[in-house]
Amino acid sequence: MLLPFLEPVQEELALVEARLRAVAAGAYAPLAAALQSLLDSGGKRLRPALAILAARFYPPANPEAVIAAAAALEMLHTATLVHDDLIDGALLRRGHATLNASWDQGSTVLAGDYIFARAAAFAAETGNPRVISLFAQTLMTICDGELRQIFGHLDWEQPREEYYRRIFSKTASLFAASTESGAVLSGAPEMAVQALRDYGRYLGMAFQMVDDILDFTGDEEVMGKPVGSDLRQGILTLPVFYFLQEHPHQREALRALVEKGDGGDSLAQAVEMIRLSSAIEAARAEARGFVARARDALRSLPAVPPRQTLYELADFVVERHL
Amino acid sequence: MLLPFLEPVQEELALVEARLRAVAAGAYAPLAAALQSLLDSGGKRLRPALAILAARFYPPANPEAVIAAAAALEMLHTATLVHDDLIDGALLRRGHATLNASWDQGSTVLAGDYIFARAAAFAAETGNPRVISLFAQTLMTICDGELRQIFGHLDWEQPREEYYRRIFSKTASLFAASTESGAVLSGAPEMAVQALRDYGRYLGMAFQMVDDILDFTGDEEVMGKPVGSDLRQGILTLPVFYFLQEHPHQREALRALVEKGDGGDSLAQAVEMIRLSSAIEAARAEARGFVARARDALRSLPAVPPRQTLYELADFVVERHL
Repeated sequence: MLLPFLEPVQEELALVEARLRAVAAGAYAPLAAALQSLLDSGGKRLRPALAILAARFYPPANPEAVIAAAAALEMLHTATLVHDDLIDGALLRRGHATLNASWDQGSTVLAGDYIFARAAAFAAETGNPRVISLFAQTLMTICDGELRQIFGHLDWEQPREEYYRRIFSKTASLFAASTESGAVLSGAPEMAVQALRDYGRYLGMAFQMVDDILDFTGDEEVMGKPVGSDLRQGILTLPVFYFLQEHPHQREALRALVEKGDGGDSLAQAVEMIRLSSAIEAARAEARGFVARARDALRSLPAVPPRQTLYELADFVVERHL
Repeated sequence: MLLPFLEPVQEELALVEARLRAVAAGAYAPLAAALQSLLDSGGKRLRPALAILAARFYPPANPEAVIAAAAALEMLHTATLVHDDLIDGALLRRGHATLNASWDQGSTVLAGDYIFARAAAFAAETGNPRVISLFAQTLMTICDGELRQIFGHLDWEQPREEYYRRIFSKTASLFAASTESGAVLSGAPEMAVQALRDYGRYLGMAFQMVDDILDFTGDEEVMGKPVGSDLRQGILTLPVFYFLQEHPHQREALRALVEKGDGGDSLAQAVEMIRLSSAIEAARAEARGFVARARDALRSLPAVPPRQTLYELADFVVERHL
């Protein structure tokens, strides 16, 4: 499960994992089982890794605070996944059944709330007002982004800027918060904090763009979820914007296929139209551009080993297939 | 809207209100409208009042932190109401349409999450690690209680202790957190903090018991919501426990009426059985007992005017009709 280039932070990641597992073990029995299974479904733990790596440029005053922040970030991410899957009616994530696939709506909402609360408790443990505040602000930003996604559903007139805003809110803001928290907790100078925050933000933008591309090109088996799920929900992502830009005359045809809403054939046709177009390559080039900006942001930082790891992590983000 | 005995804290409550309104004004347009209407539907702002009053026994080092804590408590309460109403499918609260009555499930979940996040941001503003941590722990306790309520649904074998545990979690924990935060922020000695926390906890227990009684005896017009909603959801509350204790031979009859699930006549009959029994008076006596314990907790505190206000607030809790 551990990505090979994350080996240098293996120990700290294990400490984070132990803290996450302890949460599951300590909860009310039905919730404990649910948390266990959420943790087992195995995310890549990128956000904790980002916080830990960002804290390595300057020696952290309190290494335990970094672990607590990393746990807070992963818990926050997990809570948003629980609510997102409920909202989207998704039954699979990473090949595992989602919580809402077996739990009723109410219990799923509350499980997500509980995980948010536990995340807040981890953030509080850092004892660092800036980190705690950043944590709360990031959660607001994420919710704002998700709400914009719902309200912007099937809005074919929205400018591409709205897409950037949404993916910053729903993904990049948490990546940025991860690197920023780590840097702040290590007592890094403000210039370095900003550089690491920028890295996280650009990386997060690229990460979400790649996610949105994979929703068209990915292998269902590898991804552990159906392709075309964004379009099925009426969410317009980067490949769609490129497609519409390059094929303005096919706009109404695409729209008709997506809005037909039979969920099956016409949607598959819409996905195919985009998948076979040059929109995918254009979107991928843009994602690479963001990764390049992420790498650039690191240039001003000390050339210590964690910087190399962050470079490798950036490359992984665009090359990954799941 | 202001309860008469809260006049001494009118100014601070207005500051809290202004902060809450500013949140609504600053949000994404659809969310702003929803927040506005949630604030308009007018809670009694008991939790902010408790925090402000509890901070009055010893001069607060930083009065702004008390206002921030009070805003955090009310926002947290509001967020839980948004999710609760969604979970219960409630269409009315305090005579106003609930958010889920007009919004889809996804947007309602996210609106609640956003309000949680804003509450966390207010808590962070206090800059007090104990208050921030208490805030996060309380949210966990509330979710745990709500989950127990769902999983304990129609469990006719549950002991009465399970009821106490649930109402502590879902209501009394936040009352206790309110008085505790205020006391902590005023720099009160630990004995006083504990006394004020005890007051909040007992008061919260009594408050929820009265809520549960009103669900049987209340006037729909005054309450702004239908009676019998707990039983309709299969939630067993204090009057039910007393009824079952006093009329063990009517247990199966009651159970059959509740579980028939036609939602109308048989449920009304079940409500009537309990409403006309001595269970209501027994439950009310118990609520009064908790109010007496709340009052007792104040005895060790300095005899300053806020203490008198807290006494009056306690009396209000058992005598209220909504």
